[in-house]
Amino acid sequence: MALDLDQLIKAGSELTHQPSSSVPVVLMTRIRLARNIAGYPFPGFASEEDRENVFRQVVEAARGQDLLGDPLVLRIADLSEREKRILVERHLISRELAEAEAGAGVILNADQSCSIMVNEEDHLRMQAMLAGFQLEKVWKRIDELDSGLEGRLEYAFSPDLGYLTACPSNVGTGLRASVMMHLPGLVIAKSMEKVIRAVNQIGLVVRGWFGEGSDASGSIFQISNQQTLGESEAAILKRLGNVLKTVRKQEENARLRLLESDRNRILDRIGRAYGSLRHSHLLSSNEGMSVLSLIRMGVDFGIFPKEVRSRVDRLFIETQPAHVQHLASSELESAARDSLRANLLREEFASLPEPDWEKAPS
Amino acid sequence: MALDLDQLIKAGSELTHQPSSSVPVVLMTRIRLARNIAGYPFPGFASEEDRENVFRQVVEAARGQDLLGDPLVLRIADLSEREKRILVERHLISRELAEAEAGAGVILNADQSCSIMVNEEDHLRMQAMLAGFQLEKVWKRIDELDSGLEGRLEYAFSPDLGYLTACPSNVGTGLRASVMMHLPGLVIAKSMEKVIRAVNQIGLVVRGWFGEGSDASGSIFQISNQQTLGESEAAILKRLGNVLKTVRKQEENARLRLLESDRNRILDRIGRAYGSLRHSHLLSSNEGMSVLSLIRMGVDFGIFPKEVRSRVDRLFIETQPAHVQHLASSELESAARDSLRANLLREEFASLPEPDWEKAPS
Repeated sequence: MALDLDQLIKAGSELTHQPSSSVPVVLMTRIRLARNIAGYPFPGFASEEDRENVFRQVVEAARGQDLLGDPLVLRIADLSEREKRILVERHLISRELAEAEAGAGVILNADQSCSIMVNEEDHLRMQAMLAGFQLEKVWKRIDELDSGLEGRLEYAFSPDLGYLTACPSNVGTGLRASVMMHLPGLVIAKSMEKVIRAVNQIGLVVRGWFGEGSDASGSIFQISNQQTLGESEAAILKRLGNVLKTVRKQEENARLRLLESDRNRILDRIGRAYGSLRHSHLLSSNEGMSVLSLIRMGVDFGIFPKEVRSRVDRLFIETQPAHVQHLASSELESAARDSLRANLLREEFASLPEPDWEKAPS
Repeated sequence: MALDLDQLIKAGSELTHQPSSSVPVVLMTRIRLARNIAGYPFPGFASEEDRENVFRQVVEAARGQDLLGDPLVLRIADLSEREKRILVERHLISRELAEAEAGAGVILNADQSCSIMVNEEDHLRMQAMLAGFQLEKVWKRIDELDSGLEGRLEYAFSPDLGYLTACPSNVGTGLRASVMMHLPGLVIAKSMEKVIRAVNQIGLVVRGWFGEGSDASGSIFQISNQQTLGESEAAILKRLGNVLKTVRKQEENARLRLLESDRNRILDRIGRAYGSLRHSHLLSSNEGMSVLSLIRMGVDFGIFPKEVRSRVDRLFIETQPAHVQHLASSELESAARDSLRANLLREEFASLPEPDWEKAPS
């Protein structure tokens, strides 16, 4: 099936960033499960034929799942570079899958809240995601999808170890739950290092916006579990949930302390970010993330209306390089992208109300 | 007479920055004449009594001049530090006069377009200034004032050398004409060094906003004659006028070239400057100059309405440290001044139309 990028972007922005689930400090909750099909080597060791077989089986099993509806099935080999990059920027496929070949693909439901990567590191990497802090709801969905698929596929499973996976670090539950957190207060207060150390000590991992190895553009961090073995799904999610609540509290405290000790500097940063969004003509992807991040904090402070938050969350994604590239008919150089990004943001924010500084908590 | 700072600031902003004389590239024309009274030592060598005598004679002579009307007579010794700094920031007294003691003072007409510093380096330093490029008009006024005073005071004069002054560099005509030019295009294009060298070679001097030793905040430069001896006033002014026209042309060309080669970067700078004026909460005096400077160029481009230009010229002065200090009742630290300056500029620009990018020359 051919990929309609405009439709894909529209669908994703409508459902994963609906205003109702937009909350301070948390952007998005994702859970993925790693599964493999018994009797086939892991993708990295499988023949082209085996991978193709796996792909066909997974697609067939997927078509019967209520949660996936009439899914969009995409083969990596059929996608252009730009299409792959857009899927990566939307967190629908991994960079690794984008590089994979025979039998590699992704299956998406209409609003992109459920998806299955096929023949990435494991045969199946299924994912559920929703805007906001929704570990329970997201868990319910992925669990339902997993059970549904298990009725049609024979998973590689060991009674002692649990689900078997290509990398030992995923054996057991195969579960990775991650919550995208927006922590500008802790970043400005230079407290993130301390937070990361503490979070690591209880077996959780902190990564940047695009996972392993990416930087924390826009002060956005993914916090996720590291262990998948020896703990039930419920226990993993409970532990993660508790830590996230603590981090959220720390972020809120950091913001209040900054407002108390250095109010003008914080309002100045937010104001200048708004000024750049409204009036600049060249904006790099990184600067875009960082000004949007400050606006999101401004929303949390009440300086901008609540509706702006989901717009910011959508723009975090839609101002990434491949998304901006998609707005132009021809391939752009970086300076031309920066210009297009600035135009896009000027337009997006032109119709919004100006900051209301009186509303900031004092 | 006590100094009413509010009144002083209001009068100065009304007359020296009237919109009608606001033009691109040139902010202000000033001519000063150095004169001394025969029979008295130069101020640096004079007794307190001599200096007092000179002060009284000059004030008396000044009171009879039409151009000065009913002048404001201020003795340096009666002024507070803040008052002196404000007079310096308005280009009404020099830093040197602010440090001077007995007999030192300044005489101002109502709109501050004519003034006389008494007992600075010379007994009299009279000045005429007007907004815009007005060498002829300013010369007419200062010449009229000079002739008027000469009728009542006996100037130290040598038939061979001309007017005698404390520093040999002023002997002859005692004339220094300087034009304040706004050269952001040449600064951004990194061409100022070349321009300064060329201007120096024909005997003119380029200085910063506050004269000798000051930096070129806001891309504002004073260009003035160096020689006062061996050339008539008319010849000096003609030579200066020709050079200024050339520099103005060079600035205009630099701007057009930048718009042609790097349009987005230039519009980006102007846009961000506007964004900072409208929304920042901390603005240093230097950054204030530099964002106002970019707005002025935006006016010249047509991006902002013409009326904004005289507002910018007024704010170049009214956002200087002592002026901002004056807005607060108590003495402020630098961070508090930066906050007050940002508030002032946010308010000043809130009611103005937003940039109209379509108007920029293409």
